[in-house]
Amino acid sequence: MKINVLFSPLQADELYFTGKTTVIIDVLRATTTIITALSNGAKEVIPVNSVEFAMKVSGNFFGGQTLLSGERNTRKIEGFNLGNSPLEYTKEAVHGKSIVLFTTNGSRAIVKAKFSETLVMCAFINLNAVAKYCADLDKDLEIVCAGKSGGFCIEDSLCAGKLIYELLNYKKDLKLTDAAKASLTLNDIYGRNIVQTLIDSEHGQLLTENGFAEDINFCSRLAVSEVIPFFSGGSIKPLNLPVHPISVEEDKNKKE
Amino acid sequence: MKINVLFSPLQADELYFTGKTTVIIDVLRATTTIITALSNGAKEVIPVNSVEFAMKVSGNFFGGQTLLSGERNTRKIEGFNLGNSPLEYTKEAVHGKSIVLFTTNGSRAIVKAKFSETLVMCAFINLNAVAKYCADLDKDLEIVCAGKSGGFCIEDSLCAGKLIYELLNYKKDLKLTDAAKASLTLNDIYGRNIVQTLIDSEHGQLLTENGFAEDINFCSRLAVSEVIPFFSGGSIKPLNLPVHPISVEEDKNKKE
Repeated sequence: MKINVLFSPLQADELYFTGKTTVIIDVLRATTTIITALSNGAKEVIPVNSVEFAMKVSGNFFGGQTLLSGERNTRKIEGFNLGNSPLEYTKEAVHGKSIVLFTTNGSRAIVKAKFSETLVMCAFINLNAVAKYCADLDKDLEIVCAGKSGGFCIEDSLCAGKLIYELLNYKKDLKLTDAAKASLTLNDIYGRNIVQTLIDSEHGQLLTENGFAEDINFCSRLAVSEVIPFFSGGSIKPLNLPVHPISVEEDKNKKE
Repeated sequence: MKINVLFSPLQADELYFTGKTTVIIDVLRATTTIITALSNGAKEVIPVNSVEFAMKVSGNFFGGQTLLSGERNTRKIEGFNLGNSPLEYTKEAVHGKSIVLFTTNGSRAIVKAKFSETLVMCAFINLNAVAKYCADLDKDLEIVCAGKSGGFCIEDSLCAGKLIYELLNYKKDLKLTDAAKASLTLNDIYGRNIVQTLIDSEHGQLLTENGFAEDINFCSRLAVSEVIPFFSGGSIKPLNLPVHPISVEEDKNKKE
C-alpha cells in the first residue's frame, strides 16, 4: 500500500486522479464543514468550483430543500444561505437539505479529483474513521491537501501526516513517498499541539482576524465524527450513517 | 523580510514571479550542475524548457563554443554533449563554453520564474554564499523547489529549510510562511544527515538505480562553491567570479 501526499491540488491535473483512491483534506474549513453537515443530517453536499456554478446548480433545486453555501476570503458570500463555518451547520439548519458548497480551496480540490475511483473527505474530526476505512480498503492512496490559494498550508499537511500515522496502526508495511514521509515528520513536531498549530497557521490567523476564532477549536478536535463523506455522481453523501450528531452548541455558546 | 517556499513550481504561474526575488533549488541535480559549470569557467548556462527549444537555441551558436546538455529520466539525451551529472562539468569540458541546458525539473522551473527581478540558483554546494547574498539583499524571498515531476521532493525542501536556517544567522526577524516554517522543521530533522536523506529520497534512489550514486555524494556537500548563478536576459552567469574551481576528480576517481 503506497501513500502519496499532494501539498497543493495544483500539483496534478484532473486526469491524474483517474481510477485512484483519493482523500481530500481542508481542515480550515471545507472538509470539516462537509463532515459536520453530513453528521447533522444533511442529505448531500454538492461541491462546485465557482460561485457562478453554485448559483446555476442551486437554481435546479426546489426552494427550501437547498442551501446555497460558501465563502470568499473566509466570509459568507452575499445572498448565500450559509458561509463556511462548521458551527453554522447545526441539525436545525441542515437536516434533510441539499447543500451546494463553494469554497476557495476545498470544494475546488474535490471537483478537481472527481475522476477518482474512490473519493472521500477527511479532517481532524473524522480522521480516525478515515484511517480505518483506508486500511480496510487497502489501496494505494493519494492524500490531497487543499492548501491555501494553491500553496502549502501547515494544517492540511499536519492532518495528512496524522492520517498516515493512524494508518500505521493498521498497516506496518506502508510505502511512503517523500511527501508522505515529510507529512509524518510534520505530524511528529506539530501534532503535539494541534490547536496551537492551527492558531499559529497563516489561515488560522486570517480566520481569527475575521472573527472565526472558535472555528479553529472546533476544527482541531479529533474523533468527533464517524462519518466519511463519499463523492459520487457529483454529490457527497455519508458512506456510514451518522451514529452521533455533532453538537456545535457548546462552541456557539462560547462565542456569545 | 518575508520568506516563502513553493514546494512545486506548479503552485504558481509565470506572472506570479514578476518583480520578485526568487531562489531556485534543484539539488538533484540541475542547480548543483549549473553552479559546478559556472565554478569551472563556463561562460554561461542557457536554461530551456523543452528539448526542441534546446536544439533550436544551440543551432544559433557557433559550433565548438556551445554544449547541448540535459537529461530525460536522469540519462543524457541522445545526441547531446553532456548529461545532467555535475561530475561531467569539469574545467576541461566546460571552460569558456555556453551550455544550453534542458532538465526535467530544474531548467523548467528557472524558465518559469524568468520574470523575477532577481533570480538566482541554489543547492547545498553554494548554500552559504546564497544565504549571505540574500541577507545582504534584504528583500522578500520566494524559494522555489524544482521538485520531481511537479511534485514534492525531500532534498529540495531540506535545502530550502537549510537556506532559511543559515539566513537566520544574519536576520533574526524573518517572517516565515507556513511552508517556510515547515521547511525549517524538515531541516531540523533531515538536515542531521544530508547525504543519507539524499540516498533515501525517491530521486536519490532513482539516480542510484541508474548508475549515478556518486552524484549524490557530490550534491550533498556544503560550502564547496561561492558562485551564485544569476539569471538575466535568458542566460545564467556567475554573480561572483569563481574563487576556487571545484575539483570533481576525487569523485570521478571514486567512480572508477
